[in-house]
Amino acid sequence: MYIQGGQIKINVREKEKERCELLMLSMEMLQDAKKVLEGIARQTPLFHSTYINPDADVYIKCENMQVTGSFKLRGAYFKTSSLSEEDAQKGVIACSAGNHAQGVALAAQKRGIPAVICMPESAPLAKVEATKSYGAEVVLVQGVYDDAAAKAIELQKEKGYTFLHPFDDEYVIAGQGTVGMEIMEQLEDAEVVLVPIGGGGLISGVAYAIKQMNPKCKVYGVQAEGAPSMKNSIEEGKIGKLSDVSTMADGIAVKQPGDLTFEMCQKYVDGIVTVSEVEIAQAILLLMEKHKMVAEGAGAVSVAAAMQNKVDLKGKKTVCVISGGNVDVNILDRILDKALQAQGRLTKLSVVLMDKPGELTQLLHAIAETGANIFSVNHDRMVKDIAVSKCIVDILAETRNKAHSEELIQSLKKDGYILQ
Amino acid sequence: MYIQGGQIKINVREKEKERCELLMLSMEMLQDAKKVLEGIARQTPLFHSTYINPDADVYIKCENMQVTGSFKLRGAYFKTSSLSEEDAQKGVIACSAGNHAQGVALAAQKRGIPAVICMPESAPLAKVEATKSYGAEVVLVQGVYDDAAAKAIELQKEKGYTFLHPFDDEYVIAGQGTVGMEIMEQLEDAEVVLVPIGGGGLISGVAYAIKQMNPKCKVYGVQAEGAPSMKNSIEEGKIGKLSDVSTMADGIAVKQPGDLTFEMCQKYVDGIVTVSEVEIAQAILLLMEKHKMVAEGAGAVSVAAAMQNKVDLKGKKTVCVISGGNVDVNILDRILDKALQAQGRLTKLSVVLMDKPGELTQLLHAIAETGANIFSVNHDRMVKDIAVSKCIVDILAETRNKAHSEELIQSLKKDGYILQ
Repeated sequence: MYIQGGQIKINVREKEKERCELLMLSMEMLQDAKKVLEGIARQTPLFHSTYINPDADVYIKCENMQVTGSFKLRGAYFKTSSLSEEDAQKGVIACSAGNHAQGVALAAQKRGIPAVICMPESAPLAKVEATKSYGAEVVLVQGVYDDAAAKAIELQKEKGYTFLHPFDDEYVIAGQGTVGMEIMEQLEDAEVVLVPIGGGGLISGVAYAIKQMNPKCKVYGVQAEGAPSMKNSIEEGKIGKLSDVSTMADGIAVKQPGDLTFEMCQKYVDGIVTVSEVEIAQAILLLMEKHKMVAEGAGAVSVAAAMQNKVDLKGKKTVCVISGGNVDVNILDRILDKALQAQGRLTKLSVVLMDKPGELTQLLHAIAETGANIFSVNHDRMVKDIAVSKCIVDILAETRNKAHSEELIQSLKKDGYILQ
Repeated sequence: MYIQGGQIKINVREKEKERCELLMLSMEMLQDAKKVLEGIARQTPLFHSTYINPDADVYIKCENMQVTGSFKLRGAYFKTSSLSEEDAQKGVIACSAGNHAQGVALAAQKRGIPAVICMPESAPLAKVEATKSYGAEVVLVQGVYDDAAAKAIELQKEKGYTFLHPFDDEYVIAGQGTVGMEIMEQLEDAEVVLVPIGGGGLISGVAYAIKQMNPKCKVYGVQAEGAPSMKNSIEEGKIGKLSDVSTMADGIAVKQPGDLTFEMCQKYVDGIVTVSEVEIAQAILLLMEKHKMVAEGAGAVSVAAAMQNKVDLKGKKTVCVISGGNVDVNILDRILDKALQAQGRLTKLSVVLMDKPGELTQLLHAIAETGANIFSVNHDRMVKDIAVSKCIVDILAETRNKAHSEELIQSLKKDGYILQ
């Protein structure tokens, strides 16, 4: 790959036999992607938000509302559509336990060709079922992601499938770039665009499109604190690999950026910031409560960055790209609890009481007096390290905010209660 | 009120002093509402859904994505905009612990006039805070909804506020009717439209608009089984009052339809069906998992009706209106659990074990063998009515579907386990 003029020339694997071996990632290619995606991917809504940051004019670009629940369909379908008839008929293969799996599965179904998806056996049942529902064959592989990837490569060689890379592919990048084109159509005078980064496919396409259409618009990437692979690589000026990643934003828990995406980010992205787990949880909560939408951790990092002023967006027209909404409903309540506690809207108390009649009633009365609403009470006599005459009561109470939560705690202390 | 030609003539309370005493609910009035609402309410998206009913071509009209999280803003703002300057400056009052409260509060804020909202003191903190955030004064009233309503009327008389009825008002109905106009613009050849009914304001406006624009399109109402006030009233040919209502769909838990809305439903609605609590829960789950959006119970009844084929929609272009998304995040997980259990995706087991080492390990192994994924284990020795040598283990496991759940149970029984 080399860069020349405002355009990037990439060695193309193969689109059609008669095409030349050098491909230009150009606006023409993105226009092409946009056309191909008509009737396949949705133009997702761009909503105004008065809740995310009071000092900025914030919009959300809702790729969680995309078919398959994430932007991944765009790149996967454009890539699939670029395959020669002969290659297409052999089928495609991918390795993913997440959004890429569903994107590839539906892309293949739409083109009418076979798809095989290798997943680690620990993949959530809901994701396995969703991928199967688009007609793909799911191969569950013992071990972790790397084992599933090895299996995918083995099968690719054996059966002649085309391997669909989740991000480091020019067609995939061009497909994701249509998100950037839509933003420019929906809000041509956007000044700041915040985009989640995992492998970097989405931001590569989006930043490219935006810099061509409105060079003054800043494009920032957002990563989870526990998985800052692109940020570190850009800062060090070379691609590095993280030994470990840890974040609830599993969609962007990527250890190493791609070759293409690294270069695209170097050239087109104005900066990369990170957000913490509790910041991500609060962004998910805000999107659910205020915008009635489900974002996955990866999808919500852009909103988290805007909420926390991680980049300068004061007074600016700012777009947060919500990249996806595929979060397991079974873990959503734990994420929301984390956010509610951080905001002082859920308060957990452990109170030491004398183990005698009337004590619990009195405590509950004292809590009610402060206006807090009790959700659950757990009365435990069998706690270690406590006198036989005493017990511990665990309370979960709904409070209005941090000040109210603190008021509840101080009020109980004033009444002589011992809080653990 | 009397009906004449295709138009309904209604005694108007008062729009402007110089207007005549008879108001025509006409398409002109709805066009007026649409214009007034520009820049205030959103044109909400209409998404195609391949998940709701495999035999129909289903779309969802997402009023949960409306500003304030429900359609209520439309009617409340159009009503507010119709007040004379003198009346407006005195302010508006409403009684609601739900969507109407937020709609009125924001409508008044947008017109720059005072709003007072009476709520029963039991109203969820989140709804009180949301209403206050739009600048309204919230009056918490001891007792239930009826007490809050009485207080609102008392304050109205005392202070000269205009009382904003949540549904039985021609301006409110016209405002809600803009939802129907948008549906016809977004999908002009819709054949069936399903609309939630509480008091009937939304369906009155929607059915009126649709029957004017495309008379062949059927419009059906959907109520919760536990609150079928409009359905019963229409069947009996006169307005009746339910002594009690009980449903998770609190937004449509209305005991008695309005005078205007009853007549509108008689004239324009093709039928009313009901859905059960577990059907509502499953619709909420589907919307979260497949469409990444939060619907409240009231909002999801239309989707529930389409999922369960409550009306004939085979092969038909069908629109489900999702009226709102204001559900307390603290109760959402219980709703989802109900749906997951109904679908066999969560399985609760109570297993009697010998209280000796190794028994629990063996049980967990037997469960894992079936491919079920264990979420929680509660080991209780202190259950009554059980031999001292035995104990009860409560297990919550993730299963794929009903067949898998049943397979898990049968497999344990075959292994000799006693399930309670």
